[in-house]
Amino acid sequence: MRAEIICVGTELLLGDIINTNASWLARELATVGVSVYKHLVVGDNHNRLIVAIKNALEDNDVVICTGGLGPTQDDMTKEALAQACQLDMAQNPEALSWLEERFNRNGYRLTENNYRQALFPEGAIPLYNPNGSAPGCKLEYDNKVIYLLPGPPREMQPMFYEFIKPYLESKSDGVLRSVNMRIIGVGESSAEEMAKEIINKQSNPTIAPYAHFGELSFRITAKAEDEKKAYDLIKPVINDIEKIFGDNIYGFDDDTLEAVVIKELQNKRLTFAIAESCTGGLLSSYIVNVPGSSSVFKEGVITYSNESKIRRLGVNEETLKSHGAVSKEVAKEMAIGIAKTAKADIGIATTGIAGPGGGTATKPVGLVYTAIYYNNCVTVEEHQFNSSREGVRRRSALRLLDMLRRKLKGTN
Amino acid sequence: MRAEIICVGTELLLGDIINTNASWLARELATVGVSVYKHLVVGDNHNRLIVAIKNALEDNDVVICTGGLGPTQDDMTKEALAQACQLDMAQNPEALSWLEERFNRNGYRLTENNYRQALFPEGAIPLYNPNGSAPGCKLEYDNKVIYLLPGPPREMQPMFYEFIKPYLESKSDGVLRSVNMRIIGVGESSAEEMAKEIINKQSNPTIAPYAHFGELSFRITAKAEDEKKAYDLIKPVINDIEKIFGDNIYGFDDDTLEAVVIKELQNKRLTFAIAESCTGGLLSSYIVNVPGSSSVFKEGVITYSNESKIRRLGVNEETLKSHGAVSKEVAKEMAIGIAKTAKADIGIATTGIAGPGGGTATKPVGLVYTAIYYNNCVTVEEHQFNSSREGVRRRSALRLLDMLRRKLKGTN
Repeated sequence: MRAEIICVGTELLLGDIINTNASWLARELATVGVSVYKHLVVGDNHNRLIVAIKNALEDNDVVICTGGLGPTQDDMTKEALAQACQLDMAQNPEALSWLEERFNRNGYRLTENNYRQALFPEGAIPLYNPNGSAPGCKLEYDNKVIYLLPGPPREMQPMFYEFIKPYLESKSDGVLRSVNMRIIGVGESSAEEMAKEIINKQSNPTIAPYAHFGELSFRITAKAEDEKKAYDLIKPVINDIEKIFGDNIYGFDDDTLEAVVIKELQNKRLTFAIAESCTGGLLSSYIVNVPGSSSVFKEGVITYSNESKIRRLGVNEETLKSHGAVSKEVAKEMAIGIAKTAKADIGIATTGIAGPGGGTATKPVGLVYTAIYYNNCVTVEEHQFNSSREGVRRRSALRLLDMLRRKLKGTN
Repeated sequence: MRAEIICVGTELLLGDIINTNASWLARELATVGVSVYKHLVVGDNHNRLIVAIKNALEDNDVVICTGGLGPTQDDMTKEALAQACQLDMAQNPEALSWLEERFNRNGYRLTENNYRQALFPEGAIPLYNPNGSAPGCKLEYDNKVIYLLPGPPREMQPMFYEFIKPYLESKSDGVLRSVNMRIIGVGESSAEEMAKEIINKQSNPTIAPYAHFGELSFRITAKAEDEKKAYDLIKPVINDIEKIFGDNIYGFDDDTLEAVVIKELQNKRLTFAIAESCTGGLLSSYIVNVPGSSSVFKEGVITYSNESKIRRLGVNEETLKSHGAVSKEVAKEMAIGIAKTAKADIGIATTGIAGPGGGTATKPVGLVYTAIYYNNCVTVEEHQFNSSREGVRRRSALRLLDMLRRKLKGTN
């Protein structure tokens, strides 16, 4: 099956908001074996919208439109669909009852504009929107099917899962299933080089590498009759990739590095605490974003000044004077200091120069030390990150998390 | 002038990367008075690419394509352009010398594939790419102009500024200039209601409201002969909006709330320190992301546990027992405690329930207290945020920053 995605909205066309719906839908369509040949963004313009819908219905089996279902005159996707298919608009009693119920619940009265949201091209089936006032619709026309969905992702996505995905799966001659393997600690080009042979020899499943901010993933996608057969094709490739990347693989699918580390600490019943200088709260913030992290995370301190490093962590004034705040020695004392003062099993610390100012010839911007204190022993690593202020901070936080992950697995 | 944006790439089409180029280009084209009627995403498919380019050249004065200029067989945008315009491909000596120079500098030899990057449709002018190996090109055809640019934003954007923007400005009958006014502390719908009258009466400049995560901005855009005249049109609207929103306006254009607060602290020569519970380092992380923040930010602590609140901040054990960690009283003691222990002029603190677990009937998820200690006086606010874990944390951090901003201005 062949599909086109049309996203409607002047705010998309002007670039005021980024079009995340198209990529989201494209990924979802791929999983049910539907090929997307085109994404289109058009504004709230009646004639151009009609042309776009007509062309899309000519070239494709399935068309998915998002946006332009609101109550105002600017919202005209349904009218454009009616005209593209030469249908009249008619009020749908079911959609009207959804609207009335929603407005009653919230204590509002329907305005004349709101009644427009119950109008649909004749023959269209309205689709219930549990998260907003605009219903979507499905229209079968000339052996094609077109769906109109609301623009906000939190309304559009549940409706796709509820109404569209099951239909497409039932029409598809097979399923596509993907597994993402998450890798850290290997550069993008080395990783592609290392995996080249298995990438090239595969056609089903396919293997696609993606790089993102110091992390990397391989997406393995198989097409088969059913879920189980697809997974049977994927399994040997997972094994091959595991053989190549070993401990650099930290997780699968939606795993995050911080969640993996928190889980390992929970399993081992270990507590930890964080001392941050250049990362300035970013690492703690990653940790706290994992629900349940409070069971292992005792506290964090952001010791941005020397005074604070001395007072909060007991870093030696002499060490700061002779080596400077950005040094192996200070990183080490910070890690020990935070573990001891927080009474935690593990102390981890960062100190570095995030830039754009503050660099020198011997200590350039991007120089960062990361340290872990665990079992009476400190490990310190020196890094040189070539990135923006925010990039240096993010990479430092990720690197320290990865050091901790490896330490807990006993592979560092 | 009328333009279309075509973004080429299978990874875009499959949704593996989000199309940020289209929205970036659309915003830039708006500033030079060019109207964009369509964004298109197509894969690396020869025939579909030819059709897309042909249609775009028929309907528009300017076409901008990004992507598909790399050295591999998958990269076929230039060949598609040549075929769409019935031109031959020819090696361009200047582009070849750029490639040779780049490869020599990096100590590599050109492979056969790389030579493809010096081939262009006859009559096209190659455009130098300082940040990558793929040159772009410009082709004038049938009174239209089409630009091909590389896909990576860090290569594409500087080339747009260097080669395309000046050309479009020279062709435009005027300039469009925008000013963004940044507002916090007013809900989206109330803000639109408050500004309704002035939004409706304007046609040049136009006024567009945008909401984003607890913040809001109004973009005022004027079209005029030159920059000065555009600004003369914008100025009275700024005054009108200032009259309506007063102290809720925290800045203009690229100002961030955190940078505005840091600057005000620097001006007043005041230092501050942060105690975070539910925000867990996020607020400190915003602060540290502002270059130069170290002159006023003394330190932060993330006192996620009760133990840590007592030990690091001197919060009273009794207060924790009788009121609970998420309470007005504990927020107050945290703010005082962080100011005193950090020896800072100002102490700010958050404590709350970010969810998804941890809520009760009397203290539901989303309940957050924010506190400021300054001049021997504590202000505490209670909030109920209805959002995800991350949303609750972000809104809490923004709200506390805004409280501090108002306190420093003497308006809270």
